[in-house]
Amino acid sequence: MTADDQPQPLPKLSVIAREAGVSVATVSKALNGRSDVSAHTRRLVAEVLERRGYPRQRVKPARGSLVDVMLQGLDSVYALAILGGVEDAAWRLGVDLVVSAVVDRTKNGQPPSAWLDRIGARDSAGVLLVRTSPTATQRAWLADHGIPAVIVDPRRKPPREVPVVVSANRAGARAATEHLIGLGHERIAIVTGRPGVPCAAERLAGYREAMAAAGLPVDPRWEACGYFQTEGAMRATRELLAALPEPPTAVFACSDSMAVGVYQALGERGHRVPGDVSVVGYDDSWAAEHVTPALTTVRQPWPELGSAALTALLTGAPATRIELPTTLVTRSSTAPA
Amino acid sequence: MTADDQPQPLPKLSVIAREAGVSVATVSKALNGRSDVSAHTRRLVAEVLERRGYPRQRVKPARGSLVDVMLQGLDSVYALAILGGVEDAAWRLGVDLVVSAVVDRTKNGQPPSAWLDRIGARDSAGVLLVRTSPTATQRAWLADHGIPAVIVDPRRKPPREVPVVVSANRAGARAATEHLIGLGHERIAIVTGRPGVPCAAERLAGYREAMAAAGLPVDPRWEACGYFQTEGAMRATRELLAALPEPPTAVFACSDSMAVGVYQALGERGHRVPGDVSVVGYDDSWAAEHVTPALTTVRQPWPELGSAALTALLTGAPATRIELPTTLVTRSSTAPA
Repeated sequence: MTADDQPQPLPKLSVIAREAGVSVATVSKALNGRSDVSAHTRRLVAEVLERRGYPRQRVKPARGSLVDVMLQGLDSVYALAILGGVEDAAWRLGVDLVVSAVVDRTKNGQPPSAWLDRIGARDSAGVLLVRTSPTATQRAWLADHGIPAVIVDPRRKPPREVPVVVSANRAGARAATEHLIGLGHERIAIVTGRPGVPCAAERLAGYREAMAAAGLPVDPRWEACGYFQTEGAMRATRELLAALPEPPTAVFACSDSMAVGVYQALGERGHRVPGDVSVVGYDDSWAAEHVTPALTTVRQPWPELGSAALTALLTGAPATRIELPTTLVTRSSTAPA
Repeated sequence: MTADDQPQPLPKLSVIAREAGVSVATVSKALNGRSDVSAHTRRLVAEVLERRGYPRQRVKPARGSLVDVMLQGLDSVYALAILGGVEDAAWRLGVDLVVSAVVDRTKNGQPPSAWLDRIGARDSAGVLLVRTSPTATQRAWLADHGIPAVIVDPRRKPPREVPVVVSANRAGARAATEHLIGLGHERIAIVTGRPGVPCAAERLAGYREAMAAAGLPVDPRWEACGYFQTEGAMRATRELLAALPEPPTAVFACSDSMAVGVYQALGERGHRVPGDVSVVGYDDSWAAEHVTPALTTVRQPWPELGSAALTALLTGAPATRIELPTTLVTRSSTAPA
């Protein structure tokens, strides 16, 4: 660390107040991101701080007390859990959230173009994108206007210049697979998520890593795509059972809702869970606890993803990628081979 | 209808523009609630309209393009579904939503006091309260500032002067009970929601109405409280089975998550659904479709509640209560007695 990297001590509030021509109380409010300080005053205070070599991002939020949250949709409990975490951090940081959703309003699944007009009009402090990404035009506009952006749990490969907050999908899938291997399973099938979605690819990679590390075969015939849907997983499991020379003794479903489909397809063929086949899910949704048998699964840190993203957005954290750990939750759907 | 009640035709845009001293395009934008019109211009246009006897609420939103949504919490899929409906209406009406939640930040479950400071600072066009209510102080403040409020799905008796948007809980519960009666059931128990919550009381009333109308006994011994929780419903069902002289042939669970608890308690005692006991739920959640057997239930119009509430808020609809209908969804958990 060089001398230039040392954080500067904050000049006295009274000094800033005198130079900015405002009261000490106003400086304090501006530094604390209070909404009852005008954009003009905030700028005056920021200028004094900059003149005195104090890093800019200490005046937070720099552009007003509203943060825009754009979600892919409001139809998933995971989106809600992420939003809950964002809201909690917003409460602590003293900002308010303007929430909108892409839903199916654009062909590319990215925010509509009218969105930026509104953001510009209200001097947004930053934008959080949950499971959606800005278009190239939108990224350029945000950069031009100095509005920071962070993507949470991207559904497609995120643009390199926008920081992302994700859960450790590969490590989570590895833990799920290792749990099955630890129980003595060797014929472990996987029902994967939608191809092209980063977290689906990461979970498949984690499964393969764990299989290879244990000296077990990594074989595409043991991998079937369930598209993150209950019905899709049911079909995928039926295909696996029909095609494989001998049935799997364990299935790793890359989401809890797919695990429900796996249960149903196994039940159709008279396979009991976990007596004949162990099943591990992913997400730790409400269903995981309430299906019979209760599902062993990988808990995703949804609220924590949201909180970490908002904090990174407003504190100007330099990370381009923040990865939060998952937890294996052991219930009744897994048993020794 | 007297002549005074007749809607006035809107004066020509050019006339309004001349009188307000702005362009026709600006008048059009103001009337359409576009965000790129200043509050000052909006007021000029509103004044001309008022002078010419045109009802005030046509200039929408009167106070800016942000609407505040305060939710009880972000931990329920129903809150999410309501929010989805609000967001959809916001998109159509050209306003943005500032979303916050009470969570457990106040002892009374009502919005924190700091909330109003922020609303005042950003000239909110109105506030939607989802499953929470403003305090008396907050109501007075909102009235003083001319900020309209609407409560969606209140969890306690709402203040009389604030309009509410609810689903038809009593009629929904009556339909569920009549469905069971129509299948020939006479020994119909009910597992009720948390006492004091308006929708819980309404559903119990609907059940009692249907029982009485069919000449069946309305007997408190057939009513047990499950507090809207799976565990609570399990306990309530165990109590019913232990206490009643003969087991019920049908149970109406006042929420789907309670129906899951009813299933579990019935299963413990070897009662099959629907072979021995029919079960009806309430909500039509994700679980309803995925439990075994799939649950007959009452679908609540969650997104529609949200859309109706935002529309009422912004169009100044005079209704003090908007009630939306439910739908009975018949699946595999109910059968003839």
